Amino acid sequence: MIRGVGASSGIAMGQAFVIPTWEWDFPEKMIDVTDLAYEFERLYDGIRHSKDELELIKQEIKEVVGQEQAYIFDAHLAILEDPIFMNEIQGIIELQYKAAEVAVKEVIDKFVGMFNLIDDEYMKERALDIKDVGNRLLKHLLGDTSTTVPPIDHPYILVAKELTPSQLAHLDPTNVLGLLTILGGTHSHVSIMARAMSVPYVLGLEGKLLRPIQNGDFLIIDGQEGTLYINPDKLTIERYQARKKNWLEFKESLQEIADVAPLTLDKSLVNLHANINSVMEIDQVLRNGASGVGLFRTEYLYMDRDSLPSEEEQFEVYRHAAIQLKGRPIVIRTLDIGGDKKLDYMPLAKEDNPFLGYRAIRISLDRSDLFMTQIRAILRASHFGNVKIMYPMVTSLDEVRQAKSYLERAKLELSALGVPYNANIEVGLTIEVPAAAIIADVLASEVNFMSIGTNDLVQYVLAVDRMNENIAHLYNPYHPAVIRLLKTVIDAGKRAGIPVGVCGEMAGDIRALPIWLGLGIEELSISVQTLLQVKHRLLSSDAATCKSLVDRILLCRTSDEIIELLAQTEQLEQTESIVGGN
Amino acid sequence: MIRGVGASSGIAMGQAFVIPTWEWDFPEKMIDVTDLAYEFERLYDGIRHSKDELELIKQEIKEVVGQEQAYIFDAHLAILEDPIFMNEIQGIIELQYKAAEVAVKEVIDKFVGMFNLIDDEYMKERALDIKDVGNRLLKHLLGDTSTTVPPIDHPYILVAKELTPSQLAHLDPTNVLGLLTILGGTHSHVSIMARAMSVPYVLGLEGKLLRPIQNGDFLIIDGQEGTLYINPDKLTIERYQARKKNWLEFKESLQEIADVAPLTLDKSLVNLHANINSVMEIDQVLRNGASGVGLFRTEYLYMDRDSLPSEEEQFEVYRHAAIQLKGRPIVIRTLDIGGDKKLDYMPLAKEDNPFLGYRAIRISLDRSDLFMTQIRAILRASHFGNVKIMYPMVTSLDEVRQAKSYLERAKLELSALGVPYNANIEVGLTIEVPAAAIIADVLASEVNFMSIGTNDLVQYVLAVDRMNENIAHLYNPYHPAVIRLLKTVIDAGKRAGIPVGVCGEMAGDIRALPIWLGLGIEELSISVQTLLQVKHRLLSSDAATCKSLVDRILLCRTSDEIIELLAQTEQLEQTESIVGGN
Repeated sequence: MIRGVGASSGIAMGQAFVIPTWEWDFPEKMIDVTDLAYEFERLYDGIRHSKDELELIKQEIKEVVGQEQAYIFDAHLAILEDPIFMNEIQGIIELQYKAAEVAVKEVIDKFVGMFNLIDDEYMKERALDIKDVGNRLLKHLLGDTSTTVPPIDHPYILVAKELTPSQLAHLDPTNVLGLLTILGGTHSHVSIMARAMSVPYVLGLEGKLLRPIQNGDFLIIDGQEGTLYINPDKLTIERYQARKKNWLEFKESLQEIADVAPLTLDKSLVNLHANINSVMEIDQVLRNGASGVGLFRTEYLYMDRDSLPSEEEQFEVYRHAAIQLKGRPIVIRTLDIGGDKKLDYMPLAKEDNPFLGYRAIRISLDRSDLFMTQIRAILRASHFGNVKIMYPMVTSLDEVRQAKSYLERAKLELSALGVPYNANIEVGLTIEVPAAAIIADVLASEVNFMSIGTNDLVQYVLAVDRMNENIAHLYNPYHPAVIRLLKTVIDAGKRAGIPVGVCGEMAGDIRALPIWLGLGIEELSISVQTLLQVKHRLLSSDAATCKSLVDRILLCRTSDEIIELLAQTEQLEQTESIVGGN
Repeated sequence: MIRGVGASSGIAMGQAFVIPTWEWDFPEKMIDVTDLAYEFERLYDGIRHSKDELELIKQEIKEVVGQEQAYIFDAHLAILEDPIFMNEIQGIIELQYKAAEVAVKEVIDKFVGMFNLIDDEYMKERALDIKDVGNRLLKHLLGDTSTTVPPIDHPYILVAKELTPSQLAHLDPTNVLGLLTILGGTHSHVSIMARAMSVPYVLGLEGKLLRPIQNGDFLIIDGQEGTLYINPDKLTIERYQARKKNWLEFKESLQEIADVAPLTLDKSLVNLHANINSVMEIDQVLRNGASGVGLFRTEYLYMDRDSLPSEEEQFEVYRHAAIQLKGRPIVIRTLDIGGDKKLDYMPLAKEDNPFLGYRAIRISLDRSDLFMTQIRAILRASHFGNVKIMYPMVTSLDEVRQAKSYLERAKLELSALGVPYNANIEVGLTIEVPAAAIIADVLASEVNFMSIGTNDLVQYVLAVDRMNENIAHLYNPYHPAVIRLLKTVIDAGKRAGIPVGVCGEMAGDIRALPIWLGLGIEELSISVQTLLQVKHRLLSSDAATCKSLVDRILLCRTSDEIIELLAQTEQLEQTESIVGGN
């Protein structure tokens, strides 16, 4: 048993598929070749084989997984046809009399090195593409028959040194039993995606593996406990089969409360909404009995494409979502890029501290073309359901007023064209910047609702980048300052008579529920996967008890004291014993 | 008249010295040479001449400016002896039959490009070094006789596309009349340094110059108004000479209040302390009548060298400072690196958002060797004067307690050795992280004083990197949330019965003084250069009036309303009319 860090709960058992971290070793003789013609022939053969293989994979992926996942292989094919890449390889063979393998390796290393120097997610992903293509080529040159493409005929646990969100997005989710990475952090995007996809994920195994995991090794990973077994004995397998069964049964039992009203024992109502990235998730929203969508992250509409989505495209997506939700509210958050989210086709200036930079509403207010297109699409969709609009990363009243004036302009434009929309569309904002939390009373007077984005709020309040592994221990949502600030915002909402919700990770953290109940939150917006677990605890909670718990929490001087108090609550113990099954 | 942005006030008039942004143009013929032996000879000649020149400059700088400023030329000499750099150049001549100039240019571009890709201040400065050396070499190869070293025999206005803090630090301050850069921001380190050095500075001239400024052009820059004149007519020169005279007279008149007690008209005492980076500034501290040193930034002791300063070295510096101040307090802030401040010899992991990363007390608590060395040095110095210790970037009570336990350990160690120290040394912390401000009441109970570091606090509260030009307009210390948070901290200090000071840029911003007086601050720690200007306004201010002004400010909903209120105050108008002379 190897102990790592659990990043997404659940138990997975199955064969490992390892994304190789290539370490080629060349015999000395290759460094000095004499027959250049032969080397070139070998190089061209290798390129031809690589291309054929890529075409085949692309075809297969397209049929089995889908067009969207197949496109990445076009990028790989393009690299094999890139004259700069190829000229460099040929140059090394010709001028330095090196073998094709050595030349390919040198050029890959050079390009990957160069691309990696650039602190940009897009470039880093391109570096991964080049590495992947180059390794495929090397494989053919060396006559290696191992595979770099996940099996599409049977499920597997994906094992990698590290994973990018785009790598994960391009896998067929039905075949991914679980994820295992050597590096990575529990607050990374890959971890958030894994939780959203309900895929068990264990990470943080650096220096803990005695030997590398091989393709076909049988693995058990427990994302709750953060443990890993490699080729375990029969007894362990049976034990985990039982635990997995319990876990699935618990999840199934949760399904029974999907349609129960989200009331505490003492009849406090807390709307449980869902966070979604795509309309595809709306089925699950309904199946899990969410009262609506509290956060529709529109940036995924803008990603993995070559240009901005048109008003028409966006309108269709928003309208579709509104109709499917049959009158349940859907809060559409305007584009939230910048920080760690980039659009390939809209490069932003390199920033030293992108989390403290040009992002979200700051970009929207600066790029009115882009903003107006989105606002018009949302307004038009508002005719077809209970659509609300929400502005991310607001810092000041000025920004809210500017955003609202764009909205008014869009309304006038649509009215002039006779296009129907809901003239009384509700407008909200996310509270993510400490300044916004501190003047929540001022902001509340200008909007219809507020939603606390705890992920960013916590990182700004503590001045801790939640992605930074060096200081991961300092990222603590239970810091007394965070709790005080949450109270400030919720109280401001109550005084202004507008609802306040929460849409960050902390909303779905089952430990935090007594805090939300005690502070009198009216809405939690959670990933569909954890929604019913939170509801399960909610149904057995007492709001009045939580209220006095929060009174005590507000007197705490350290996060340890707060976590200790939360741990002491009977509800937590009780819930944990059911959820964890141990 | 060209309008830029004023970054440091004052008027400078004098000859331009331009740090060239090299753009070499080569005749076609150089691309294909035939006599390789001749090219190599030229290359070696160029290298030899460059080295001779560097040795000469180094010697000259050492004698005229000082050893510390001369060392940078050792780095340049080392590059000329770097085998990788030289091999690349030779390789291009030999294999591609290119002229020495072309080869040098290509290699410079390649290395500078590579180094610039890396998002690291250290690497960027090394890129500047390589550029500088390469250009010197090119200059010799091309027989250019222009100079890249500022004159040391007469004063000049330094003109550059952009400047780094280290470039500025390596100039002889007595010869720098003013600074002018095309790029740059008013909150950058260079701007802060310029203000600290009282050097007028105008920036933000991109696209505004009809022709490049040449060496020897006569310039007038007005750092208050942000204006620039190139070779102005006689009348303009006379007008500015008069204004400069007024400005100098005002500065001289300020000297008269150096020894006046820092009391408002209604007899509120506000201690005016100085921020210093080096003991060299203590003369000025005393001359300007500061009540003490409110912030001694020790990181400059750690910079521009090859290894950590020893306990003995630090002790000597701290002791010297304590003795010179003759009983006036000196607050020594422990090492504040990370963020945008790096130590060459202690590389930190690359971070996506260094301002939200591993820095200041977070590093000290993690590196107890380094921390204990500094604490012991400070403790030992406390025997020789009124020394206090201050921890930067504290986020939680846990950190204060940890830091204090190291202090207790250091005391035990010194006691065991019989080394004298002040057992009752006062301990304080800076309030820079929003979390610390929000729980200032909790933190206040553990320390003897608190000091608000507004620069970082504002950037975290607003989630705006103050160095980021893209969003410079969003960095606003007059945001209502900032004022509320300042009140929270100051009130917490009062309730705990401990003094609260301010040590950020906002402390020396004359516009902000009514806020500080109204909030009842007890201490402002300011650069020695602006201290008397603040005192001038303080002496003519009425604390009670400021108090009611702040009551109104606390009701403001936007920063514009606050700035408007401040502008309306009579005191401001009055002070401005004297300071600006217009």
